[in-house]
Amino acid sequence: MFLEKIKTEGLAHLSYVVGSDGEAAVIDPRRDVEVYVELARARGCRITRIFETHRNEDLISGAPILATLTGASVHHGPNAAGDVAYAQTTREGDEFAVGRIRLRVLETPGHTDDSISLLLEDTDFGADAVAVFTGDALFIGDVGRTDFYPERAREVAGRLYDSLQKLLAVGDQAVVCPAHGAGSVCGSGMADRELSTVGFERRNNPRLQMADRDTFIDAKVAEQHDYPPYFERMEQLNLVGGTPMASPPMPRPLTAAASEQALTRGVAVDVRPASAYLGAHLPGSLSLPVDMIAAFAGWLLEADDDLVLVADDADQAGEAARRLGRIGFDRLAGYLAPSLTAWAATGRAFNTVPVVDARTVQARLEAGTADWVLLDVRSAEEVAAASIDGARHVYVGELAQRIDDLDQNDRHTVMCGSGARATVAASVLLRHGFEAVDLFLGSMGAWRSGGFPVRD
Amino acid sequence: MFLEKIKTEGLAHLSYVVGSDGEAAVIDPRRDVEVYVELARARGCRITRIFETHRNEDLISGAPILATLTGASVHHGPNAAGDVAYAQTTREGDEFAVGRIRLRVLETPGHTDDSISLLLEDTDFGADAVAVFTGDALFIGDVGRTDFYPERAREVAGRLYDSLQKLLAVGDQAVVCPAHGAGSVCGSGMADRELSTVGFERRNNPRLQMADRDTFIDAKVAEQHDYPPYFERMEQLNLVGGTPMASPPMPRPLTAAASEQALTRGVAVDVRPASAYLGAHLPGSLSLPVDMIAAFAGWLLEADDDLVLVADDADQAGEAARRLGRIGFDRLAGYLAPSLTAWAATGRAFNTVPVVDARTVQARLEAGTADWVLLDVRSAEEVAAASIDGARHVYVGELAQRIDDLDQNDRHTVMCGSGARATVAASVLLRHGFEAVDLFLGSMGAWRSGGFPVRD
Amino acid sequence: MFLEKIKTEGLAHLSYVVGSDGEAAVIDPRRDVEVYVELARARGCRITRIFETHRNEDLISGAPILATLTGASVHHGPNAAGDVAYAQTTREGDEFAVGRIRLRVLETPGHTDDSISLLLEDTDFGADAVAVFTGDALFIGDVGRTDFYPERAREVAGRLYDSLQKLLAVGDQAVVCPAHGAGSVCGSGMADRELSTVGFERRNNPRLQMADRDTFIDAKVAEQHDYPPYFERMEQLNLVGGTPMASPPMPRPLTAAASEQALTRGVAVDVRPASAYLGAHLPGSLSLPVDMIAAFAGWLLEADDDLVLVADDADQAGEAARRLGRIGFDRLAGYLAPSLTAWAATGRAFNTVPVVDARTVQARLEAGTADWVLLDVRSAEEVAAASIDGARHVYVGELAQRIDDLDQNDRHTVMCGSGARATVAASVLLRHGFEAVDLFLGSMGAWRSGGFPVRD
Amino acid sequence: MFLEKIKTEGLAHLSYVVGSDGEAAVIDPRRDVEVYVELARARGCRITRIFETHRNEDLISGAPILATLTGASVHHGPNAAGDVAYAQTTREGDEFAVGRIRLRVLETPGHTDDSISLLLEDTDFGADAVAVFTGDALFIGDVGRTDFYPERAREVAGRLYDSLQKLLAVGDQAVVCPAHGAGSVCGSGMADRELSTVGFERRNNPRLQMADRDTFIDAKVAEQHDYPPYFERMEQLNLVGGTPMASPPMPRPLTAAASEQALTRGVAVDVRPASAYLGAHLPGSLSLPVDMIAAFAGWLLEADDDLVLVADDADQAGEAARRLGRIGFDRLAGYLAPSLTAWAATGRAFNTVPVVDARTVQARLEAGTADWVLLDVRSAEEVAAASIDGARHVYVGELAQRIDDLDQNDRHTVMCGSGARATVAASVLLRHGFEAVDLFLGSMGAWRSGGFPVRD
Repeated sequence: MFLEKIKTEGLAHLSYVVGSDGEAAVIDPRRDVEVYVELARARGCRITRIFETHRNEDLISGAPILATLTGASVHHGPNAAGDVAYAQTTREGDEFAVGRIRLRVLETPGHTDDSISLLLEDTDFGADAVAVFTGDALFIGDVGRTDFYPERAREVAGRLYDSLQKLLAVGDQAVVCPAHGAGSVCGSGMADRELSTVGFERRNNPRLQMADRDTFIDAKVAEQHDYPPYFERMEQLNLVGGTPMASPPMPRPLTAAASEQALTRGVAVDVRPASAYLGAHLPGSLSLPVDMIAAFAGWLLEADDDLVLVADDADQAGEAARRLGRIGFDRLAGYLAPSLTAWAATGRAFNTVPVVDARTVQARLEAGTADWVLLDVRSAEEVAAASIDGARHVYVGELAQRIDDLDQNDRHTVMCGSGARATVAASVLLRHGFEAVDLFLGSMGAWRSGGFPVRD
Repeated sequence: MFLEKIKTEGLAHLSYVVGSDGEAAVIDPRRDVEVYVELARARGCRITRIFETHRNEDLISGAPILATLTGASVHHGPNAAGDVAYAQTTREGDEFAVGRIRLRVLETPGHTDDSISLLLEDTDFGADAVAVFTGDALFIGDVGRTDFYPERAREVAGRLYDSLQKLLAVGDQAVVCPAHGAGSVCGSGMADRELSTVGFERRNNPRLQMADRDTFIDAKVAEQHDYPPYFERMEQLNLVGGTPMASPPMPRPLTAAASEQALTRGVAVDVRPASAYLGAHLPGSLSLPVDMIAAFAGWLLEADDDLVLVADDADQAGEAARRLGRIGFDRLAGYLAPSLTAWAATGRAFNTVPVVDARTVQARLEAGTADWVLLDVRSAEEVAAASIDGARHVYVGELAQRIDDLDQNDRHTVMCGSGARATVAASVLLRHGFEAVDLFLGSMGAWRSGGFPVRD
Repeated sequence: MFLEKIKTEGLAHLSYVVGSDGEAAVIDPRRDVEVYVELARARGCRITRIFETHRNEDLISGAPILATLTGASVHHGPNAAGDVAYAQTTREGDEFAVGRIRLRVLETPGHTDDSISLLLEDTDFGADAVAVFTGDALFIGDVGRTDFYPERAREVAGRLYDSLQKLLAVGDQAVVCPAHGAGSVCGSGMADRELSTVGFERRNNPRLQMADRDTFIDAKVAEQHDYPPYFERMEQLNLVGGTPMASPPMPRPLTAAASEQALTRGVAVDVRPASAYLGAHLPGSLSLPVDMIAAFAGWLLEADDDLVLVADDADQAGEAARRLGRIGFDRLAGYLAPSLTAWAATGRAFNTVPVVDARTVQARLEAGTADWVLLDVRSAEEVAAASIDGARHVYVGELAQRIDDLDQNDRHTVMCGSGARATVAASVLLRHGFEAVDLFLGSMGAWRSGGFPVRD
Repeated sequence: MFLEKIKTEGLAHLSYVVGSDGEAAVIDPRRDVEVYVELARARGCRITRIFETHRNEDLISGAPILATLTGASVHHGPNAAGDVAYAQTTREGDEFAVGRIRLRVLETPGHTDDSISLLLEDTDFGADAVAVFTGDALFIGDVGRTDFYPERAREVAGRLYDSLQKLLAVGDQAVVCPAHGAGSVCGSGMADRELSTVGFERRNNPRLQMADRDTFIDAKVAEQHDYPPYFERMEQLNLVGGTPMASPPMPRPLTAAASEQALTRGVAVDVRPASAYLGAHLPGSLSLPVDMIAAFAGWLLEADDDLVLVADDADQAGEAARRLGRIGFDRLAGYLAPSLTAWAATGRAFNTVPVVDARTVQARLEAGTADWVLLDVRSAEEVAAASIDGARHVYVGELAQRIDDLDQNDRHTVMCGSGARATVAASVLLRHGFEAVDLFLGSMGAWRSGGFPVRD
């Protein structure tokens, strides 16, 4: 019997393959499904079952795609909103054999109404669960968010509480296998650790230490979570089933001229690291470094945008295409093959972003610089925890929607925790016609290290 | 924080890399250490600590090799037999920081006197162990063997019992990370499952269900284990430290003529699957299919044998070389590059092994065939559990040493569980000059399926 | 400017990618086209043109598949039989720019009526051709076969002669890039060398040394070539365009029971090396080792056979699936995952092939053994060159069709050059119910080496 | 028979593996030799011979390393300066068998005194050369430089002329396999094409079109070539033999603090693309993007510098390490693992380079800006061909040595062809304490495209 975890970087999404005696099951597959086929094959297993612990809102499910490829059946929890087209409905107590593994269904609603967990049992041994796939109900160090049904806020928080009791009853010995790890938008307090058990969580997960059901509910309804606009689209898509992704994704190289042509009706997405964008970039391009695509593409891009990537090389462009594809952005015209230096050498225009350090920001604040805004683009939660007096706050994800709150005539110095998200935000300002934009590199980190005053 | 398990096929050896915040530790590395360096690098970590849970007797430790490559320190439990040359001695309660991981030492003697376990703690959370590296003390579904000090049999079994109590006290929540999985020669009852916790083992491991200390000791001293002759050599080597392995191992191709030349002073080791050997093989060659190298090379080869591999292709030869290297067989002259058909087409001699089925064996038994031996080469334990009346038993590992117990003038039909080990055994007989040797394909499995009588 | 040659093992098929300044062209792509996309991408080029030097009869063309994937146009020579559905017709003198490369069309009919060659010119330099893609007109050490229009035998041989004069006129400096290398069924005298030029061929290719046009025609019409039955199907398919191949091909593992079930309406194809088949195989299975698939699958399998592979492991099964797919055999039920020993251990039946050596064959011949046939399955050409007195000849490819010429009651000892093709032939006999079949391992090679008499 | 070309990016170095019947030879191996072993193995060959066409001055030869690994012999031309320690001396007419290949030595001095060429003959065919390995005597579109013995300038140019006549006599049909392709410092006029023949070169190579020997000599002695300071060291090293390179090179990750510590006695080498350096970099770091390492590391680094890489990720750091290692820079402390943003967030200092465009440069020139220098760092050859009036020229390679010619109090705007080499040059100025440095992005390319006046 084996259990393999597949971590999808960026989304912090976790999926699993379990197998025994020539059969395998996959839990919560992502859109690019080759990894599961390859893993099962390496173990001499064919995939016979696919499970979704809940309808994903943050990525395109690979379940229908993998089902078509392998002939496996897909199983999904009971869903009041209507059936998932490609899945069979499974309910509390249902059992599935995968070789000598038995998977048993627990209904664990709360995060969503259709959330299920799956117990993994070894039929060679007693009835104790070896592991439990907890979906977005229980994470390592946190629990699922419960803000998807705002009108039923207390009810669903209470349902999650009850589901967690059900999970605790599985026994301390069960290894916890959640659908997300640290870095996900599906929970904010996850541990930076990839391994835990029900017993460890029972004693150490802050959300499981609360006095009673009401205290838990109070805490959950007080939480604030981002809700990127693409979530809606993913939810709809995962009801009917998405299409396969090109494999491997290989955006085609474009010359400077071809890129320019494609950009007449498309958006330039610069997936290079932040400092490359700061040094030189295509006018009007959006900064979206590869490792930020999962977090911000869903905020900043529209589903029907035609994208022209700006990348350092074909590998980086390919990885960007893969990450964009996982969350439904497939319309790639290609990538600019020449470097920015080569682009500039054709005589085409480029742009840069001036960079400032903590001392300069401090001087400007002290001087009470007129028509100047220190724009902090971190989350409300981070800003509440610690901020710089005099800074203005707009979350990077919401910057485009709230652009009219800002004055194009002001000079803006953008900051975040380190300067990475601030670079994304700077590119949003520049795309919207702001001209006087600079970047506070090091941002809150440098500010603290420099001993400048922080408002807690 | 991450934890990665590396499984070494054949040996069923498990090693681990754990890391956090740019630092990593490796537990029980094998000789070909690139995998650890590569894993740590992919996580942006450098390896700072290496641990051995005990002195390995079944493989060459990679600890000194990895230490040289990375500058990491090596830590080993207290060893009455003399210090391990390349390691520092560590004792109960010692703590080691690896980023935000804390590794804490438990002395858990019994399998060997120097056995330690390591608790893995997450300093971001409470003091509960997240996992425990149990070496050869506690396996999934079994415990370590305690037959290495025959003159202190009850004492060391008792020490293991006490060590296991110490491990149970770690708490049900701790994930169990042993040094071997199913298929190892270091324990015979291991579960065919790669995942467990202290809680699951406490309730399901047969060895932990025993009434009391004395019952446990009685059971352990009654066990019978193989002791392949190369164990002795590994133990000595792992006191001073082995040398790096060629990476990747690429035995050089030899023509038929060059192979013949090399064989004037070397041994032909046929690493192709069993049925290829049966179909045609080099006279005098030993059958040792790749997936049997770990189990039987240490019984059948001498440390100073010069080996000429017979393989289907370069990849198979390379994998064989890697597996031989892990247990100290480095003297490879190369591999026969032409196929057996091509070899035969040069006019060189070849040999085959006739194959018989259950019905034929049954007929011979019934007929009371004279000068004919049905030779069962399974382990004593298997033979005790079920056998065929009239079969003679010699364990495949001991066949060469006990060859004089058999009569070359008899015809021998060799059997095992399926025919795989029997093929190895047949090759041993042929190498020793036996001429009338055939192979019972399907062996005990086919015998049972055919409904023939079995003595339990 | 770059030129990369892609060799497809088994078929000895050669295809090419050339590129310059961000554009690439592919000549004669095979069905599994990822290799071209990946090569072009690694060079920062997008594929804009695809050429077929002629309509392939021995494999499925990848041109329409690659065109769909990349948007490139496909170009094919003028074809009296009707237009190729997915291609534009190109004619003598047409020019195509690929970056700073110029490809220029020469019509070079003979092998087929629609054969073209392509000159590769470097526009940075003079008008001399750097290389010439000669398709199946000119090979290294040989020229194309001209037996596809038997009723126009002399005419097409003459057309090829004229085409070769046209190619010689390209100049000694041009590198020759043919569509096949040694081992192809499209020409029998090819050099075992992968590099040549027009100049080298002009002086060294035996077919270019002939006195005059008539001598050449005489020699060509005297040639004998195999015409495997699947050629007809390939030709039809490549008129309309084939479908993409699963990528990568991963036949699914089947248990012994599932294999048996699939075999009730399918054919077992044993792709392991010959000696494994000899040692033990599934009753009724066809021996077709991976490296013989290209040569013999088209003779021995029907397009609508459901195939169950017997392989040593998943990699071997995958490679077999790929090779079968290239020539249009896609109907794979999966592969038998257990080994033959494990299959036998379920109590299922197996079969073996006895093996004999040269001395035994010689003894039987001398003894004038009754009801015994020494069956030589080499090609007519090989048999004409050297044979054993008393052997009977049926070509392995035609054995199934000519099975009624043989008497099932005779004992057959099968031979070829070494024993490899003979193993395939033995499996054909066994499938047709012959029971007394053995294999002359070493065959003609061993016979000669042993100094036995050969009839030249 | 096969011939494989291995291109080493950056150095534009070409090496070759040829093989036949189980034997292979390698011509001009580089330091990281795994590629040759792997290629030979994939073809079922063992490497028996290694040839150096001359003593390399631009990279560390892999010949002695590969010889140790494989047991092959090394062959080198006659060398007046003293014998190459690891090689046997070979002379005109010597022949070497590699399977059915024959390699025949031609002495072709000129580039160096010890230069040889090797004819590749196919013993299955006539005596015509199939190919010729021309080392640094004859390139595609150019011939070798002859400036290594300045005091014998005309003599060695004449010797090269004679060697070229010898090569032309090989015949038009021979494929030309030189030791360098376009982009090498060993010849400046090479074609951007990887394929040619003696015939094609005879008619198209400009250096082979000259009227007579004296005209050729005149042209050669008038050439100007760079001579990076590390050449001297390579030549010495390749007399005695270099050491193997770590394989694969994996520089270890360093935290910001560990990097800072290492930098107290080391040099920061920023291997990210130019625009990332412009956007933000470590103060005092040298810009040396991966694809410029081969060209400029030998100018800018000292052999005993301890290097700390600044890279985007582990892969980029690894590739940089490999390229540095090939030319002898092995002293790597590691690479800065956090990004520049993360570095800045620790409060540590960073620097940026302002970027200007053609219009700004033009305005400054027109304005006659005081204390301002437009610094053109292209080669003398390029500057002679086209330049901007008013620009000052110092070649990037010589900038450090000539730093005192510049005035630190001036503002410098650095330019080259596109801005890539100018970024390297800007980093040299900044390292030497220049504070007012900006970068003309697009440089000469943008200048021309903008229609600004160029002095030819």
